[in-house]
Amino acid sequence: MPRIKNNDPSVFIGCESNYGEAKVVMFGAPFDGTSSYRPGSRFAGSAIRNESYGIETYSPYLEKDLADFPVFDAGELDLPIGNACEALERIEEAVSEIISDSKIPLMIGGEHLVTLGSVRALAKKYPDLNIVHFDAHSDLRDDYLGEKLSHATIIRRCHELIKGNVYQFGIRSMTKEEDLWARENVVQRKYDFKTLDETISRLRGKPVYLTIDLDVLDPSIFPGTGTPEPGGVSFADLISAIHRTVDLDMVGCDVNELAPHYDNSGVSTIVACKVIRELILSII
Amino acid sequence: MPRIKNNDPSVFIGCESNYGEAKVVMFGAPFDGTSSYRPGSRFAGSAIRNESYGIETYSPYLEKDLADFPVFDAGELDLPIGNACEALERIEEAVSEIISDSKIPLMIGGEHLVTLGSVRALAKKYPDLNIVHFDAHSDLRDDYLGEKLSHATIIRRCHELIKGNVYQFGIRSMTKEEDLWARENVVQRKYDFKTLDETISRLRGKPVYLTIDLDVLDPSIFPGTGTPEPGGVSFADLISAIHRTVDLDMVGCDVNELAPHYDNSGVSTIVACKVIRELILSII
Amino acid sequence: MPRIKNNDPSVFIGCESNYGEAKVVMFGAPFDGTSSYRPGSRFAGSAIRNESYGIETYSPYLEKDLADFPVFDAGELDLPIGNACEALERIEEAVSEIISDSKIPLMIGGEHLVTLGSVRALAKKYPDLNIVHFDAHSDLRDDYLGEKLSHATIIRRCHELIKGNVYQFGIRSMTKEEDLWARENVVQRKYDFKTLDETISRLRGKPVYLTIDLDVLDPSIFPGTGTPEPGGVSFADLISAIHRTVDLDMVGCDVNELAPHYDNSGVSTIVACKVIRELILSII
Amino acid sequence: MPRIKNNDPSVFIGCESNYGEAKVVMFGAPFDGTSSYRPGSRFAGSAIRNESYGIETYSPYLEKDLADFPVFDAGELDLPIGNACEALERIEEAVSEIISDSKIPLMIGGEHLVTLGSVRALAKKYPDLNIVHFDAHSDLRDDYLGEKLSHATIIRRCHELIKGNVYQFGIRSMTKEEDLWARENVVQRKYDFKTLDETISRLRGKPVYLTIDLDVLDPSIFPGTGTPEPGGVSFADLISAIHRTVDLDMVGCDVNELAPHYDNSGVSTIVACKVIRELILSII
Amino acid sequence: MPRIKNNDPSVFIGCESNYGEAKVVMFGAPFDGTSSYRPGSRFAGSAIRNESYGIETYSPYLEKDLADFPVFDAGELDLPIGNACEALERIEEAVSEIISDSKIPLMIGGEHLVTLGSVRALAKKYPDLNIVHFDAHSDLRDDYLGEKLSHATIIRRCHELIKGNVYQFGIRSMTKEEDLWARENVVQRKYDFKTLDETISRLRGKPVYLTIDLDVLDPSIFPGTGTPEPGGVSFADLISAIHRTVDLDMVGCDVNELAPHYDNSGVSTIVACKVIRELILSII
Amino acid sequence: MPRIKNNDPSVFIGCESNYGEAKVVMFGAPFDGTSSYRPGSRFAGSAIRNESYGIETYSPYLEKDLADFPVFDAGELDLPIGNACEALERIEEAVSEIISDSKIPLMIGGEHLVTLGSVRALAKKYPDLNIVHFDAHSDLRDDYLGEKLSHATIIRRCHELIKGNVYQFGIRSMTKEEDLWARENVVQRKYDFKTLDETISRLRGKPVYLTIDLDVLDPSIFPGTGTPEPGGVSFADLISAIHRTVDLDMVGCDVNELAPHYDNSGVSTIVACKVIRELILSII
Repeated sequence: MPRIKNNDPSVFIGCESNYGEAKVVMFGAPFDGTSSYRPGSRFAGSAIRNESYGIETYSPYLEKDLADFPVFDAGELDLPIGNACEALERIEEAVSEIISDSKIPLMIGGEHLVTLGSVRALAKKYPDLNIVHFDAHSDLRDDYLGEKLSHATIIRRCHELIKGNVYQFGIRSMTKEEDLWARENVVQRKYDFKTLDETISRLRGKPVYLTIDLDVLDPSIFPGTGTPEPGGVSFADLISAIHRTVDLDMVGCDVNELAPHYDNSGVSTIVACKVIRELILSII
Repeated sequence: MPRIKNNDPSVFIGCESNYGEAKVVMFGAPFDGTSSYRPGSRFAGSAIRNESYGIETYSPYLEKDLADFPVFDAGELDLPIGNACEALERIEEAVSEIISDSKIPLMIGGEHLVTLGSVRALAKKYPDLNIVHFDAHSDLRDDYLGEKLSHATIIRRCHELIKGNVYQFGIRSMTKEEDLWARENVVQRKYDFKTLDETISRLRGKPVYLTIDLDVLDPSIFPGTGTPEPGGVSFADLISAIHRTVDLDMVGCDVNELAPHYDNSGVSTIVACKVIRELILSII
Repeated sequence: MPRIKNNDPSVFIGCESNYGEAKVVMFGAPFDGTSSYRPGSRFAGSAIRNESYGIETYSPYLEKDLADFPVFDAGELDLPIGNACEALERIEEAVSEIISDSKIPLMIGGEHLVTLGSVRALAKKYPDLNIVHFDAHSDLRDDYLGEKLSHATIIRRCHELIKGNVYQFGIRSMTKEEDLWARENVVQRKYDFKTLDETISRLRGKPVYLTIDLDVLDPSIFPGTGTPEPGGVSFADLISAIHRTVDLDMVGCDVNELAPHYDNSGVSTIVACKVIRELILSII
Repeated sequence: MPRIKNNDPSVFIGCESNYGEAKVVMFGAPFDGTSSYRPGSRFAGSAIRNESYGIETYSPYLEKDLADFPVFDAGELDLPIGNACEALERIEEAVSEIISDSKIPLMIGGEHLVTLGSVRALAKKYPDLNIVHFDAHSDLRDDYLGEKLSHATIIRRCHELIKGNVYQFGIRSMTKEEDLWARENVVQRKYDFKTLDETISRLRGKPVYLTIDLDVLDPSIFPGTGTPEPGGVSFADLISAIHRTVDLDMVGCDVNELAPHYDNSGVSTIVACKVIRELILSII
Repeated sequence: MPRIKNNDPSVFIGCESNYGEAKVVMFGAPFDGTSSYRPGSRFAGSAIRNESYGIETYSPYLEKDLADFPVFDAGELDLPIGNACEALERIEEAVSEIISDSKIPLMIGGEHLVTLGSVRALAKKYPDLNIVHFDAHSDLRDDYLGEKLSHATIIRRCHELIKGNVYQFGIRSMTKEEDLWARENVVQRKYDFKTLDETISRLRGKPVYLTIDLDVLDPSIFPGTGTPEPGGVSFADLISAIHRTVDLDMVGCDVNELAPHYDNSGVSTIVACKVIRELILSII
Repeated sequence: MPRIKNNDPSVFIGCESNYGEAKVVMFGAPFDGTSSYRPGSRFAGSAIRNESYGIETYSPYLEKDLADFPVFDAGELDLPIGNACEALERIEEAVSEIISDSKIPLMIGGEHLVTLGSVRALAKKYPDLNIVHFDAHSDLRDDYLGEKLSHATIIRRCHELIKGNVYQFGIRSMTKEEDLWARENVVQRKYDFKTLDETISRLRGKPVYLTIDLDVLDPSIFPGTGTPEPGGVSFADLISAIHRTVDLDMVGCDVNELAPHYDNSGVSTIVACKVIRELILSII
């Protein structure tokens, strides 16, 4: 009697390739140790896999089917609780292995800090790496209550690593200091994706990492997150922005900050599932 | 001492006519036996009546008042649990009685499969029946895990009955096979109601059944449903589409797939109540 | 060992001035005794202060920071439970004191009836007071189930006090009688803020009281309220309308009808916090 | 086509007699205007009727079936919101009618204050009325924040009316003043029902009113109430106490303080339904 | 890069043996098609595996560790939605395979009807099979609204199969007819486990199937179930009863009726996990 | 206009002394960085103060009133997110100041790890310190996934500091290794408080620190915690155990592991409030 393979909760729907044949490798990074407001994003990967069987593998937007492409879902990394340094090292190690095999890593957070582990690995391989960043928060503080490694400083840390090639969209929350600093140091589009096409043209042919903090969405459609910020983009806006990244030379990406416990209706988790489906079908 | 008639939870607000004088007859079809993802739509009718006292009977959109029109609310049908065939027969019987008395049936689901009972009765009376279908899902599978009668196959079954006169709006989830089949066999508008006016013109003077799966709405405003699909229409879009159906020769209609337990805020149930109010005021 | 002043839940974030130096005085009016559908707005003030530490003090919309302006948060008034007359007297007394010191009162409801206490105080000082009213409901009944003082009659009562200078926006629920009466007696814009600029021009230089019933927002973004009404304005619409009031001579304002228990996700409370931040930064 | 009588939410399960033949008359008193902590008991009657179809009509404890006894469920009284005096008058009037027809009134609160309306009617007919009171709170304050009519003063008001024949059980929350006053003026058993048999012996042959504040139950089994008090009695304890009252000459009774919104699991409402079933089967 | 095996949600904690070496084989039966009150037990198996990582593998009660015993978790059976006959056949087939390999099947429901599939398989192998049944409901109806196969008739169906050797414990809800029938036909202990030791002595050496409907527990500790019944046994009572079954010759067992959505706190799922741990350690 | 002092959410009810006159100093330690299963205890202090106005200051158990004793509530410590070492240092510093002024510290967690900061300060002043520990979990691991500082190792760390004088009660979850180690190294009473009186006799006259992990309670009454463990003590058991500690020479204490978000009913927070009231009235 073999294990029954019916709606296997350890694998995202339609992502049943083995590692060897896969072009995209998905894995979870269940860390939320620096969440300042409401923790819980560590449960995102598990919730996403479990609920992914509530959506179809087929995208009517792209007229493509997840089942037709080779994606490997490696499961959840084993990250230490409450130790950000060690967690980032393990993420870096995993991403290094994936990219050394010429595959595209797709990381499911966790809090936004996990992006740093991934970017460290990619910045070594691609010294001219660019980051396209969808978020409600600019995450550009130099430190947060004295800490250098935090969900509120993550893009600042990335900025240091990659010499500034940061393009932000959807931003609508920050301190005064972050706002002033951003004007000098990054390309930031507030509230929406209006200038995304320009950025995509500019980045054509260059290696790009896409990091999606799902709280870029309006909390009407995505209440299940640690720091909800009213005034965000719609689901259609986000999906459309993701579809446009097909013209980028994407070398890695992540989707983070789903905290499923805060949305009893389950809609936030389904939103994350569809974002991941559209993202995979756009980058593959 | 008579029964107190204050906010009577067995009747939708403002629908206190008797059967004889009524032009519209409302009834519930509490069946959700084939729900594949999250069951619970069987509780919709009861929740809708109970919460209907939280809205007004007056529509500012139409400048009409439910209290001024003769509507009879018959209550909830007695349907067997877990027996789809028998449930459909009882629905067909109830609808047959209503239409033989020249009244318009308005059925409150239940899962979408209940529509089939209603369409069977109407297709007998109107061999040239047309279906206008608002939904997130195309519901056009030939079978679902081997079952011919399912919420996922319901429009395919209707299509067989009425020789194909199916017009779909708001569709955004399906399998690849359904998408291909739909192109050959039905008129399908994805995501929105942009082509509704054309369809209405085309159907003028012909008998029309309107079936509204409330998950056509975006889950931001309607999370309380079995299979929420982000990227849907707004409440204003749906109301406006309903208002436009005033030009159709509507011989029956239904509103289905509210699953009230999944929305603790109660908003989804209120949405259903207002949809029903606007629908009645549009068809009467 | 002094009291620790870390995220003090008795004060809204950034509102730490003393009374003497303050230009705006914020206080809570925890009364919901006439709520007809779902009570609980009495808990709004406490929830708002507690969760205000989840937002930033800086507004990217206005490029201003709450921390840079003198605002005093007086806490919650001590109001009797279930005694509307007495509650209104205590509110009137508090507002009278604030305006006699030439400060602007910002009241946090409670149900909408609390506005009457505030308007009574202001109408004495400003006989030509005007009311700008954002709401889903017109609140223009003469009585509600026989009661003259109710959340459903509050604007009618104000109208009597100030001889009719009432400008309503976003209204989408009322009885037929209210709709007819409104056409003769107030300036009412249904559903949105399209005519707000006209009103602002017309009121320039005149004393204005702004009362915001948060249920003017669509329940997709604000489910946590006693009487949710689908079809409302978006958060961006409301914020933009508030920003435009900067051209008014605002002598008082309130924000009411958050009922935090009905939104387990916490988003409604965060929405209220951001509305208050933008409102303070607009009027100061 | 008649109204369908399937699980009619306007009537408690098994209580389908007409008024004339009934020995017990059940009605709801949906008033919660003086609730100091968490309102919502106004929704109890409606929730109880709706969910009563989740229990059986048969009691294995008593080996009796609700369907075998004549009980009339009159529905919910029409009570003014936020006007305690008027609400109490309407309750008194309803109870007076029921007892003048030699039937036993069973009132479903609402908050505990509604008991006063019922006791006023009964004290007129039975000047030697006794009250047996199950509750977590002694409700013996002379006034609450200045108000004489409140859920916190209700038993003190009754005590004045009936010259002191008050027997309390399960009490575990009070002020110091109430505790001292109780020692002089009432018979009070704290925490449990240990002395109930003595009281029943003492009251044999005398007219008794039983008032059950459901928060006498431990909040582990009954979280859905305005003022939960840990350390209460178990469901088995309460049912057993109710069964013992069969030896009393019960002339009226009530069950109050269910606030269904605070218990998403629905268990509190089911508890109330079973308490009502056992109570009816004990007094009939 | 292999699949990461960290807290694998497709396997119950500590049950990582392969089929060959296993003595106990656990599998899920996600069927809830005949639930009459509140569906959702189909999600139990998935929730149980996911949350099992919140408990320890070690039982201090038994001083045994799940990690030390060979248990295979086969995952969730693929059962048709809304087709009870077919679902029961597939369960029977799975159980037949397990017992033909001389292993003990431990089935995780699903609604209680799934037990019939398992008992059919076992009754073929053991014509003298006995059933020990822990439940709040006697499940002894001959039919339920005309249906022979239902969660309310399941033990009656089993009784027919095994010629009556049914021993029930904890029963506290039934119709009058069921109560009368039970007195003639089964051994039934109401409310508790007081006579369990007698039954165990009597059954020594005979093949026994243990079926645990988790609603035997009081809903204070187990609210997450379709038909909660106040007045149940405590967790300590249930665990102790399970431990006593070590003296039985157990040939199969099941644990059913967790409906995780009704308990937002997650406690009900944890309760189920600990019951399963103690059950495995008792039968192995 | 002064700050209104009505139900001030920054102070626990009845704890309004200043620091100088206080005998007990209460403060919050909002840290949950090492929670392995479900985080959120960082919100406990704030929730407890806010909801404390739902209970009385008077204890009928002890016939004492919190308002009659000098207690200072210092508010919430400012602790770094995700940095356990620094958090523990700040706690140690605060406790050191309190005990150097001969006052008793009462710390409100946060996760259980915060106890270590308090014990470090007290162990310096009292080298012969003893710990009485109420908990579901023994917390005696040497490390947890490699970390020495964790909620799962906290009592092991304390044991090292105070040379072993650890007395545990209510323990019902541990690894096999912890169970074996405990037998050699601590005094552990499993499941209940049966041997508490012996321990109290033995500790008479010696300095004692009492640490209460609220998950010692059964999750039926306390679901709002990170790691609920069925089979715990009742509220009455815990209160009674606390009352018995009046005979100890208590030099400090804490109450931890409330995670209010997991209990939507609010009961868990009220339980924590009453435990704190009884604890203060027992130690003062």
